Amino acid sequence: MKKIPYKIYLTEEQIPTKWYNLRADMKEKPAPMLNPQTGKPASLNDLYPVFCEELAKQELDDNTAYIDIPEEIREFYKIYRPSPLIRAYNLEKALDTPAKIYYKFEGNNTSGSHKLNSAVAQAYYAKKQGLKGVTTETGAGQWGTALSEACAYYNLDVIVYMVKCSYEQKPFRRAIIETFDGKVYPSPSNTTNAGRKILEKKPNTTGSLGCAISEAVEKAVTTEGYRYVLGSVLNQVLLHQSVIGLESKKAMEMIDEYPDIIIGCAGGGSNLGGLIAPFMKDKLTGAANPRIIAVEPASCPSLTRGKFAYDFCDTGKITPLAKMYTLGSEFLPSANHAGGLRYHGMSPVLSKLYHDGYMEAVSVEQTKVFEAAVLFAKHETILPAPESAHAIRTAIDEAIKLKESGEEKTILFGLTGTGYFDMIAYDSYLNKTMTDYIPTDEDLKKGFDLLPNINM
Amino acid sequence: MKKIPYKIYLTEEQIPTKWYNLRADMKEKPAPMLNPQTGKPASLNDLYPVFCEELAKQELDDNTAYIDIPEEIREFYKIYRPSPLIRAYNLEKALDTPAKIYYKFEGNNTSGSHKLNSAVAQAYYAKKQGLKGVTTETGAGQWGTALSEACAYYNLDVIVYMVKCSYEQKPFRRAIIETFDGKVYPSPSNTTNAGRKILEKKPNTTGSLGCAISEAVEKAVTTEGYRYVLGSVLNQVLLHQSVIGLESKKAMEMIDEYPDIIIGCAGGGSNLGGLIAPFMKDKLTGAANPRIIAVEPASCPSLTRGKFAYDFCDTGKITPLAKMYTLGSEFLPSANHAGGLRYHGMSPVLSKLYHDGYMEAVSVEQTKVFEAAVLFAKHETILPAPESAHAIRTAIDEAIKLKESGEEKTILFGLTGTGYFDMIAYDSYLNKTMTDYIPTDEDLKKGFDLLPNINM
Repeated sequence: MKKIPYKIYLTEEQIPTKWYNLRADMKEKPAPMLNPQTGKPASLNDLYPVFCEELAKQELDDNTAYIDIPEEIREFYKIYRPSPLIRAYNLEKALDTPAKIYYKFEGNNTSGSHKLNSAVAQAYYAKKQGLKGVTTETGAGQWGTALSEACAYYNLDVIVYMVKCSYEQKPFRRAIIETFDGKVYPSPSNTTNAGRKILEKKPNTTGSLGCAISEAVEKAVTTEGYRYVLGSVLNQVLLHQSVIGLESKKAMEMIDEYPDIIIGCAGGGSNLGGLIAPFMKDKLTGAANPRIIAVEPASCPSLTRGKFAYDFCDTGKITPLAKMYTLGSEFLPSANHAGGLRYHGMSPVLSKLYHDGYMEAVSVEQTKVFEAAVLFAKHETILPAPESAHAIRTAIDEAIKLKESGEEKTILFGLTGTGYFDMIAYDSYLNKTMTDYIPTDEDLKKGFDLLPNINM
Repeated sequence: MKKIPYKIYLTEEQIPTKWYNLRADMKEKPAPMLNPQTGKPASLNDLYPVFCEELAKQELDDNTAYIDIPEEIREFYKIYRPSPLIRAYNLEKALDTPAKIYYKFEGNNTSGSHKLNSAVAQAYYAKKQGLKGVTTETGAGQWGTALSEACAYYNLDVIVYMVKCSYEQKPFRRAIIETFDGKVYPSPSNTTNAGRKILEKKPNTTGSLGCAISEAVEKAVTTEGYRYVLGSVLNQVLLHQSVIGLESKKAMEMIDEYPDIIIGCAGGGSNLGGLIAPFMKDKLTGAANPRIIAVEPASCPSLTRGKFAYDFCDTGKITPLAKMYTLGSEFLPSANHAGGLRYHGMSPVLSKLYHDGYMEAVSVEQTKVFEAAVLFAKHETILPAPESAHAIRTAIDEAIKLKESGEEKTILFGLTGTGYFDMIAYDSYLNKTMTDYIPTDEDLKKGFDLLPNINM
């Protein structure tokens, strides 16, 4: 038998021509977003002041299974896609496991992660609508980088609210966003009411994603020719990210493989939702039944320890309400948490699928995550992002279990990006100054107590 | 006609099975290295205490045109190679040039550059010889990263002397080397006589490549089971890097292209020598006659303003003498010089070819280089390393000339790596605090006055 190569590349012509909309095959749909003023399901007209029109339509479209990828977006995808599906021969050997391990590597582009897949789409639709610019927030910085890259390409202005602690700890992320002409403000800032209000209450706050979202949304709706864009959580983002899963599935078909276990890190759900999309379709339609595992940080455990309830997507409570697994919109992971995966909620689509038993979730502690990251780097020669390393951790754990049981199963995991901008975290792991933190039930209760009282 | 894709990938099986040794086709060979004690051509026995045996043989082999790439090295190459040959459609459009521009992108690996190609080979031969470890120096940090990656893979110890200013300015480079278990010392250090001597004379020195080389060589020859390895300048390095040119040529053949102009940045010559190897063969054998352009920084102009003479490869004057274009072994580019390409000399092979009229050389100022880098990033979506951006600058300049003359020529340049660890330099360009510096004739004379007096 011919040896499967290390890297399986599709051709540029094999890049999907349609995104796959997972919601279309869900018998029970995710609960609708609610207008926070009326408490009624958000309509297109509610969304148009915030989102580009085409994106608002995608957001509310629960029924169209396949949506054409515009040729202009496919042209951009061709610059950095298809991303390789990689056989982790060296990791398998190091673990001495009978498991076959594959990973879809989304880090070979300057944004350093899968975030570019949706940034390209959102920037394109904004440009097509004749907008002047877009606003967004960024935490660890991948999304801000990806969006500024996409906006530079389509010649669109972009304002990025960067969570203050990240702005201060990652000046290079700011610099790369500025290289692509993005305007970056540390959040909370005094450029919005939401920011000023938080600064008044907590002048020394280091910011949060929820707060940066409030600022970015406010800026968008109060600035002529601007709209707001978001890199995760939303249905539209999962739609765009389905390109990851569609390519993965096609590449696996080419080598006669199908994953028994699919593993993705989960913060807001953009990567996981994209990676699993076509495999979840198989599961929903009964064509196949792979195990699907979401991996989240023990310090921000929305799926494993959150409540499935309506909640605000931002701290300022100006965004629509979403039904999701949430830790409460004021939840902040502890200061020692490195990297992304720090959002208080989870994609409503994924939340619903998890709630209905279509996937599993585990949480992992960060020192164990970095242990996996370093092992992976040494054997696979790629330095993973801390976020991605959550999936690596669980892939390794599953491969070790398969060694113990002697099963030759196939694992697919998402390697969302590279860790070049996370060396402070690597350093603290290597110096053994990195610590773990698991919130107590008491800590979590504070967040749950603030959930809006909506039963739907 | 079918449109040429953005990225042309060879298959893993198409990775070359042999490196190409350019010296074999040179009618006039580069002058031999000289033993600094005897003044006689260095023999294998002179080199064995410093270099691994197989590498010493490659260093002195001026006659074998093709050298087998061991299967173990090809297996490593398959993890991150073949690297893509990319058609710069978007840059062409931005410049409105009739030129077809291609670039060979070597940045899609964790070391972030082409340096890994030789690091893998050198680490492999060291391991095969049963050594315990290797020593080296690193300036901008790519080489140190690449070598530590390769050594982690082959389970070999590595000690890296990192030029002190780089060690201090680039803590993340240090951290990534340490992630791969490399031991890093800022150079000059007090771990060697060479380092201590320099520290005594100049306690506040920020170090230099020449000094770091002296330390690494001393450490290797005084430590049981260690040898010294180097990431550029040497014949063996150009040999390993020929994989860049061989892949480029094969990929271009697949789309019926042949470059009229080949452009590479040149510091010690590792990338340029590798990129041009098979095309220079065509030139040497009369099969084709492309223009070949070396691009160097105006602040470190060894080819364009240096002397073609025997010189030391290090500040401590313990390495063999090499005949090369040099600015003198004590030359240091001015403090405002960003990134690599700061070595005082140039590969003896490339020096000889340049001297004999087989290639051109230009020097470019760094603000112009960063202007090109930012333009490239916005259109091609890859953030280039400052080193690589030297080639981009000249590729753009040539493409503009072709626009003026209306010629539809084909340009190939080497995009050696990514700039994620160079954001301080990008920042200074964006803030307009970056300056240019061109050494005066007076400055250069100081270096030339210290050249050893050898006529050969």
